[in-house]
Amino acid sequence: MMTAFETIQAETVPTDNENNFPAEGRLQEGLNQEITIHGSVHKIRKMSGFSFLILRTSDRLIQCVLDTGKCRVEGSLKEEACIRARALVVEEPRSKTGWELHLTEIEVLSAPEEEMPVVINGKGIDASLETLLDYRPLTLRNEKQRAIFKIQEGLCRGFRAFLEKEEFTEVHTPKIVYQGAEGGANIFRLDYFGKDAYLAQSPQFYKQMMVGVNERVFEIGPVFRAEKHDTARHLNEYTSVDFEMGYISSFRDICRMEAAMIKSSLAWLQSHYEKELALLKVRIPEAGSIPSIRFHEAKELIASRYNRPLCEKNDFEPEEEKLLCEIVKKETGSDFVFVTHYPSAKRPFYAMEDEENPEVTLSFDLLFRGLEVTTGGQRIHDFRQQLAKMERMGMDPSLFESYLWIHKAGMPPHGGLGLGLERFTARLLELENVRQAALFPRDIHRVMP
Amino acid sequence: MMTAFETIQAETVPTDNENNFPAEGRLQEGLNQEITIHGSVHKIRKMSGFSFLILRTSDRLIQCVLDTGKCRVEGSLKEEACIRARALVVEEPRSKTGWELHLTEIEVLSAPEEEMPVVINGKGIDASLETLLDYRPLTLRNEKQRAIFKIQEGLCRGFRAFLEKEEFTEVHTPKIVYQGAEGGANIFRLDYFGKDAYLAQSPQFYKQMMVGVNERVFEIGPVFRAEKHDTARHLNEYTSVDFEMGYISSFRDICRMEAAMIKSSLAWLQSHYEKELALLKVRIPEAGSIPSIRFHEAKELIASRYNRPLCEKNDFEPEEEKLLCEIVKKETGSDFVFVTHYPSAKRPFYAMEDEENPEVTLSFDLLFRGLEVTTGGQRIHDFRQQLAKMERMGMDPSLFESYLWIHKAGMPPHGGLGLGLERFTARLLELENVRQAALFPRDIHRVMP
Repeated sequence: MMTAFETIQAETVPTDNENNFPAEGRLQEGLNQEITIHGSVHKIRKMSGFSFLILRTSDRLIQCVLDTGKCRVEGSLKEEACIRARALVVEEPRSKTGWELHLTEIEVLSAPEEEMPVVINGKGIDASLETLLDYRPLTLRNEKQRAIFKIQEGLCRGFRAFLEKEEFTEVHTPKIVYQGAEGGANIFRLDYFGKDAYLAQSPQFYKQMMVGVNERVFEIGPVFRAEKHDTARHLNEYTSVDFEMGYISSFRDICRMEAAMIKSSLAWLQSHYEKELALLKVRIPEAGSIPSIRFHEAKELIASRYNRPLCEKNDFEPEEEKLLCEIVKKETGSDFVFVTHYPSAKRPFYAMEDEENPEVTLSFDLLFRGLEVTTGGQRIHDFRQQLAKMERMGMDPSLFESYLWIHKAGMPPHGGLGLGLERFTARLLELENVRQAALFPRDIHRVMP
Repeated sequence: MMTAFETIQAETVPTDNENNFPAEGRLQEGLNQEITIHGSVHKIRKMSGFSFLILRTSDRLIQCVLDTGKCRVEGSLKEEACIRARALVVEEPRSKTGWELHLTEIEVLSAPEEEMPVVINGKGIDASLETLLDYRPLTLRNEKQRAIFKIQEGLCRGFRAFLEKEEFTEVHTPKIVYQGAEGGANIFRLDYFGKDAYLAQSPQFYKQMMVGVNERVFEIGPVFRAEKHDTARHLNEYTSVDFEMGYISSFRDICRMEAAMIKSSLAWLQSHYEKELALLKVRIPEAGSIPSIRFHEAKELIASRYNRPLCEKNDFEPEEEKLLCEIVKKETGSDFVFVTHYPSAKRPFYAMEDEENPEVTLSFDLLFRGLEVTTGGQRIHDFRQQLAKMERMGMDPSLFESYLWIHKAGMPPHGGLGLGLERFTARLLELENVRQAALFPRDIHRVMP
């Protein structure tokens, strides 16, 4: 006896909105069609004799005319109700698009239980950052808030498209790890079935391991830093765009690749996210050629130009990053600057030192509009060199046994970088606080929503 | 006084290997060229008067002839050394590609310190699973091991390309959360600056929140399950391909979309990963139409067909999933089967119940060659309905305040799914253990490398 199975066909489910609207510059073709559409009621504005209903679809706000005499409404229509509707596309020169919808039939699919605790249907949101984040599941429905993350998506797609074209293999490495890669106490500890484990501060060890396998690899994923900073620049969980590549001839290969990746991603954005870029008035920076300066020269430059004392010798103060970017902008016009040759004292044990001066490493940061957005560099590939450096630093190599296998077994000269996606987004959009560029930010005080 | 900045040009760094080899079917054009190439020395086989050197590049093994009389070697040449070389492309009918390389110059960039603790340059790796995983950074260099993860990359790219085309927005949601989405004790706890926090079991709440923002969203990222199972099917950290979509008319919309996504991704694999599919002799399944059966009917079918007692009423035993797939394969030819209408007792609080029978939910699993690879379904979008269900289940709604905001504020009918990337890869490649499809698997005993 055969069983009667139902059958599910592999079929895409079209969004009602697809190909429904008059195309850019081809208004005439779309006019006077009756279409089906769905979305949320973003705003209702009563006029005399009719209402304007602003419909929020997945990617735009649409002006609709609701004349209750000419439109059958099924259900209770209020702001934030989800509706499916029939409507006529009508020419309207006062609308930005040149058209508007005249609603003929509305089915309310679901209605809100309460009014929004925060007003989300204005241009922006008139509330403190705290409120914006407390009510994040709702405030993200605001047009401008939503656009931030569409642009972030676009950046990601741009980065990925570039890396795939340049023959990088995408990898998924574990976030629960037995050992921190960056050293220090800034690591979240976890009880892993009675053993200690940690949350990965970066995919560093794993992406290096994978260079031995695929030569070029990348990963876009979460990383975790238990830093106690409470600043506009820090998140305790963020999305890191990491790549690592073998057979480099200098750490400058990494810089060149990063500049090319950014340039390519920004071009992608400009051609695919025009609407959101216009809405947020984004100034797209040039990344075709990026100035570069050595760390110690940058320190001296800032000190002399602004008459500041040289305090912290081995690192930048946040203020210094801003000042350096100001100088660079003024003198070269660039919104980016590479700072190279950071002191060995401030870089991890795997950073390759400069043969000419072991006090500094073949590493770099990329600053963008006043903020560090990338750290990268060449890594040590030779086993003995790595072992010697670990011993010099008082580390116990036996704790890094499986990592060191790759050095023992043979590794090409290699290097890579990590780019903070939220930081990059924040500087691109000139948002004051990096939290504004994280969907659901995690900071020292915030672990919800 | 102007500062003298160096300049980094945005330039891609070509791999030496790019466009170097005779193209498929255009052998003549590439012959007798001298090329530059780099890679690892995979194997050296001494013959009389010369050696075969198998070079492992980022994407293939290449047969090279090394005649020390005709080739200048700089450095110590051994297996796993990383080299840059000059070589002549020479016709060789006995080689699979129709050509081989005659080395003329070798520069050893780095040499291994020790011999490999495990032989990786055979066809496969002759070692236990434990050894394979213990030495993962090295065993992944094996040709077949590497191919597993190229195919996994291809699946991911295929899924993503499909979802982007279908207007899903990619999101990055937090992995450190204040509340588990799936309930139960299978959750990793974390000390978050003195507060309790958890590792996300799924992006469930967040992707639902984002349906209110973008209508269709997806995320490919890590999820964490503190399950104490030690089986061939379980990982404690895995990569979940999640999507969620609004304005569905039935949970079957989700099934149709999944079938279309799988079909599209498999087609992408076939056109872009031919080499790896051939190497691993992958049998690509049909996903154009997939049989579907209700859970309780499936239970009865298995019981009657195999004369098994009906023990666990509300869930499948792993053996039952295998048997069901056997029946389906035999009767319909399909490697996939949707099982629908799982008992409410076994589904989370957000699962929508069937109006006709509240004992079952509008949910489904997808089984693939004997194993569950996806769980999905329609979610409750109405606030009162959700509240009532939580109260019926003895849950405290105040603990889910920010999640419930979306229901209060208005949500469209929606649903989605999570697909386990490692499980899907394992079944596609017919690997016995899901650990074989994770780069660096995490299980109850293993948190390294």
